Parts: sequence; C-alpha cells; structure tokens
Amino acid sequence: MIAVDPVAIVHNGRTVVEDDDWGAVESRLELADWIPSEALDGIEAFSHVEVLFHFDRLSNDDVVLGTRHPRGNTAWPKVGIFAQRGRNRPNMLGSTFAEVVGRDGRALRVRGLDALDGTPVLDIKPVVREFLPRTSVRQPVWVTELMREYWARGDRQR
Amino acid sequence: MIAVDPVAIVHNGRTVVEDDDWGAVESRLELADWIPSEALDGIEAFSHVEVLFHFDRLSNDDVVLGTRHPRGNTAWPKVGIFAQRGRNRPNMLGSTFAEVVGRDGRALRVRGLDALDGTPVLDIKPVVREFLPRTSVRQPVWVTELMREYWARGDRQR
Repeated sequence: MIAVDPVAIVHNGRTVVEDDDWGAVESRLELADWIPSEALDGIEAFSHVEVLFHFDRLSNDDVVLGTRHPRGNTAWPKVGIFAQRGRNRPNMLGSTFAEVVGRDGRALRVRGLDALDGTPVLDIKPVVREFLPRTSVRQPVWVTELMREYWARGDRQR
Repeated sequence: MIAVDPVAIVHNGRTVVEDDDWGAVESRLELADWIPSEALDGIEAFSHVEVLFHFDRLSNDDVVLGTRHPRGNTAWPKVGIFAQRGRNRPNMLGSTFAEVVGRDGRALRVRGLDALDGTPVLDIKPVVREFLPRTSVRQPVWVTELMREYWARGDRQR
C-alpha cells in the first residue's frame, strides 16, 4: 500500500458524470494547505500541464480488473482495463494534459481537464516536449471513434 | 489520504540512480498477483503506454514542497516543484510514455521507461492520440537543456 495526499482540489462547477465535451471546461486547481504557494512558481512558462488525479466518485466495487467493452459499447471489442483509459480501473487514477490559462496565487487555472468539481489532484507536472512520444503513435480504430466528441460535441466543434 | 496498490513491478536491471540515458532501456512490467492477465488484453494494438509509478527509493525527507534549482543546477532558475518533473515531489509519482515492445502473458515489455528496477507501477494506460496536446507546446529553455541527454547520451545518439 502506498499512501498519497491531494496536493490540490479541482473547482470547475462540473458535477454531472458525462463522457464527452470536456475541451472548453476551465478549472481552478486550488492548492491544499500543506503545499506552499511557491510550488507553482514558474509554471506559466509552460503551455500545458499534466494533471494526475483520483476518480473519487467511484468505489472499489466499480473497478474492473480484467476486460470490458469500453463504455459498455458492444460494437467495440472487449479489451483489458490497461488497454483503455476508462475511469473504472485499478487505483482509479486519471492523467490528463490541460492547457495553462494562468495562475492566481494558490490557484492554477487550466482548460480541458476532464475531472469533476471537487476531484483530488495528486500531482501537477509541466508538459515537456521531450516527454511526448518520440515515435509515431498507433491506436486501434475503436479509440478514434470513442474520442470523437470527447473534447467538443459536433454542434459546437471549433 | 488515498491508498494505492502496485499493479505491476518494473524489471530492467537498472539499479543505479542516474539522470540520463533512458531511451534504450527495456523493462518488463510484471503484473501483481491481484491483477488478472486479461488486464493486458489488446494492449499490443497501441504503440505506446503511459506508465504511472512510485519513486520508491525516496523518503518523505527528500520531497521538496516549494522551489529548487532543477537537478540542483544553479545555472537554471529556481522554480516550483510543479514547474519541473524531478522525482523529489509531493506524492513521489512518476508518469512516462514508453514504447510497447510486446506482451508475454503476465508481462508487458516496454522501451524507454525511466524507472529503476523494482519500481512499483500504479497504472498502465494506452497512449491515445486525442489525449496529446491539441495546441502547440511551449517550454522554457532550461528544460530543453536539461533534457538534452535524457534519452540518449551524445556518443550513442541515434
């Protein structure tokens, strides 16, 4: 067992669990009391941050250890939980790149974080170009279908 | 406090803490007993995985909460721990994209994971194109300098 503590909390007013349309969502990540404000110094020199967070609305009973159809959609293949990014996963950890909007003292404002209001943040890391894939990214077709409206629904796509 | 459990352990024979030259390292991620083998089903359809792990060689005394010079190098600015990716961070969590080499039953073989032998893995997620930055990535010059030999030292650069 490894114990981790929230370093920040998400504030974005998004309280309903929905799969799609996260691209325009702005969130404030408010630092927890045990983290000094200076932990964010210099963060605005980066365009993006990687946010690690905990899917705290789930219970252990929701976790899938083996395989499942992504989003329960039987049109897509049944694949292992480590071959999909769904939240019902062992340890219930999320990881998303979000755009840095700005910093106000003890809060970091970001755009495009797919986490609900109140979500505990476990780490904030700057996105570094050399940490992106250095060879071309290949993925199965079902993923591209699943992601179609994840960031913006069709009627509002920019 | 949130408790997490290792889902796999890193085997790569790399036991010395060194900052650079991680690109060619091959690792076997052996699933923990509580995770069924099927959790990896379908993972070879992806070229890369994102590996979340715990920097278990550190103690709480090593953690920096405020600012520091990255790698202690005073030629680089003193920045907040959330504006750098160094391991001495709150919760001691690492996150790296690695190339999928292959899968052998309960083990996933990957290339380019910057974690020591024996490191506890907390999650394995497929790298999905739509989850990469959707706007251009900007970073300060010191990061580019720091990353220069991270994946391959000059004399072996491919």
